[in-house]
Amino acid sequence: MRQAGRYMAAFREFSDKYPFRMRSETPDIAIELSMQPYRAFKTDGIIFFSDILTPLPGMGIEFDMVKGKGPVIANPVRSVEHLKQLVPLSDPASRLPFIHTILSSLRREADSAGVTLLGFIGTPWTLAAYSMEGKSDKDCKETKKIMMHNPALLHSFLDFLTEQLIVYAGYQIESGAQVIQLFDSWAHHLSPAQFSEFSLPYMERVTRALKAKYPHVPVIVHANGGTGKLELMSNTSADVVGLDWAVDMKDARKQLGAGVKVQGNVDPMILFGPEDKIRAEVERCLLAAGPRGHILNVGHGVVQGTPESAVGVFCEVARQSGALHAKAAANGARQPALV
Amino acid sequence: MRQAGRYMAAFREFSDKYPFRMRSETPDIAIELSMQPYRAFKTDGIIFFSDILTPLPGMGIEFDMVKGKGPVIANPVRSVEHLKQLVPLSDPASRLPFIHTILSSLRREADSAGVTLLGFIGTPWTLAAYSMEGKSDKDCKETKKIMMHNPALLHSFLDFLTEQLIVYAGYQIESGAQVIQLFDSWAHHLSPAQFSEFSLPYMERVTRALKAKYPHVPVIVHANGGTGKLELMSNTSADVVGLDWAVDMKDARKQLGAGVKVQGNVDPMILFGPEDKIRAEVERCLLAAGPRGHILNVGHGVVQGTPESAVGVFCEVARQSGALHAKAAANGARQPALV
Repeated sequence: MRQAGRYMAAFREFSDKYPFRMRSETPDIAIELSMQPYRAFKTDGIIFFSDILTPLPGMGIEFDMVKGKGPVIANPVRSVEHLKQLVPLSDPASRLPFIHTILSSLRREADSAGVTLLGFIGTPWTLAAYSMEGKSDKDCKETKKIMMHNPALLHSFLDFLTEQLIVYAGYQIESGAQVIQLFDSWAHHLSPAQFSEFSLPYMERVTRALKAKYPHVPVIVHANGGTGKLELMSNTSADVVGLDWAVDMKDARKQLGAGVKVQGNVDPMILFGPEDKIRAEVERCLLAAGPRGHILNVGHGVVQGTPESAVGVFCEVARQSGALHAKAAANGARQPALV
Repeated sequence: MRQAGRYMAAFREFSDKYPFRMRSETPDIAIELSMQPYRAFKTDGIIFFSDILTPLPGMGIEFDMVKGKGPVIANPVRSVEHLKQLVPLSDPASRLPFIHTILSSLRREADSAGVTLLGFIGTPWTLAAYSMEGKSDKDCKETKKIMMHNPALLHSFLDFLTEQLIVYAGYQIESGAQVIQLFDSWAHHLSPAQFSEFSLPYMERVTRALKAKYPHVPVIVHANGGTGKLELMSNTSADVVGLDWAVDMKDARKQLGAGVKVQGNVDPMILFGPEDKIRAEVERCLLAAGPRGHILNVGHGVVQGTPESAVGVFCEVARQSGALHAKAAANGARQPALV
């Protein structure tokens, strides 16, 4: 979680100087910001600095990041007429050329470091809701009004976005990304029934298309607020399901079934605690998840103000997970079988 | 959900004129605002107009409602010294005399209308977090820092609040309230493990104390964002567990077990939809919950801007629930047993 972060002083030097879109669309800056966390913490992967909204201007939907407000879409998509004016992302290399430059360069860095390059996209539901809402709204009011009064319009938009996101994720892979993460950041606005109708099938269509064309590329899906939706996700075509921190790891494993790998689910606020508490909480998560099929991660983005040293502790404990699991297995073996 | 509401024009006439604390602490106004939804929708209950923070000034914690920001506590409780300065609510009738005036008067109204009067309180965790945080914060940062660095301070505060809330809820009952609801409005900030340590035991202590002293008074507990915590709540001493709308009703029933009654869990944004959609969604919730042990409700407060007529439709469908369940039972009986 968090390809780069406001919690890093090196990052803030850039964010104080350049607006978000300039940072994410200027290869030199985006590459530098992508590399910062790797250089600081020697993570196993590099996540490219970008945003789930980055492909939208390539489809004719302009957005901007406004300080303290988040992304703002000045001209939200709320009618069939508007939908018809959108342009398919048929030629991403000409519409979003910086993506190729950034990812191919990062791939060289990743290869020479022996680590993995991760790309990511938003899900159709999340991008549709952002584009219809225009800005963050705790009730997702405008999108839900359309969902209630004109579900066909929402479905048409979801269908359009699904096709574009398949193209866009493919472009990321062909530019160098070795893993694709799908973020359903606004899944928390949906009841399980709404999730089944407006998000899951489209997310699944993207995943299946990617797995068909790029079977060697692992796909991770993460639904924010997905705790009540895990059973629905147990049939996912993705390789990994991300967990926020509202669910108990063992319950999540049970609901998803043995075949699904998981990512998560440490409370990011733990990183404000003393070192021994961070260590204890991360170890608790590792042991609850078990030695296989788990990518250690926080359950939501690293919070602004998090001490950089705490992220270091988190990564250090992660690197010792093999020893931790081996010790747990040895302790388990020494215990009487029926206790 | 929502004892009174910003969605009602009659309510806004008062909220435009008088600040929140004046409205909730002046008996004539609080009584009028409590009665408005009953008069408009002929609900089965009357919920007194108040706030979960209302008892805090009686313990020495002053708060104010700031437009667009919500409650603000100018002097947050973050030290042992501050905690020692707080005053137990041993004599609520002198500290919060308006509560008795409001509830005893409303009880006469409820009795003459043949409906039930509901009181409510916040849980120890939620009031502690409000008092430590000072204002709404999406990461609950200040409280969680204390949770990480000085959990003993948080536990002392929770212990103090638990005792005061038992007194305060008892005072509500003795003033006329016939049901007590406990709102754990900030439960969503807690992981299941944190909930087990910092909220559930204190909420349970309040509930058990009330059930011991007032066995005839039903207790409803509602944890916002409680979807991943339902199994933990299955041993509750409360009569009813409230559900937000992030969980599927049948899953919630399964996790809570057959002995626990439920309240909820319609998405409040449904009320922005056309009448037939509202009707269909409410009926779906009623049928999923089954004919017994369910209080129909929205899963979170009614959203500002909700048409008053939509609340009317919601209540009308609720009144027809007997006929709906009877019809479902008859249809079920006509189906072959093994299908």
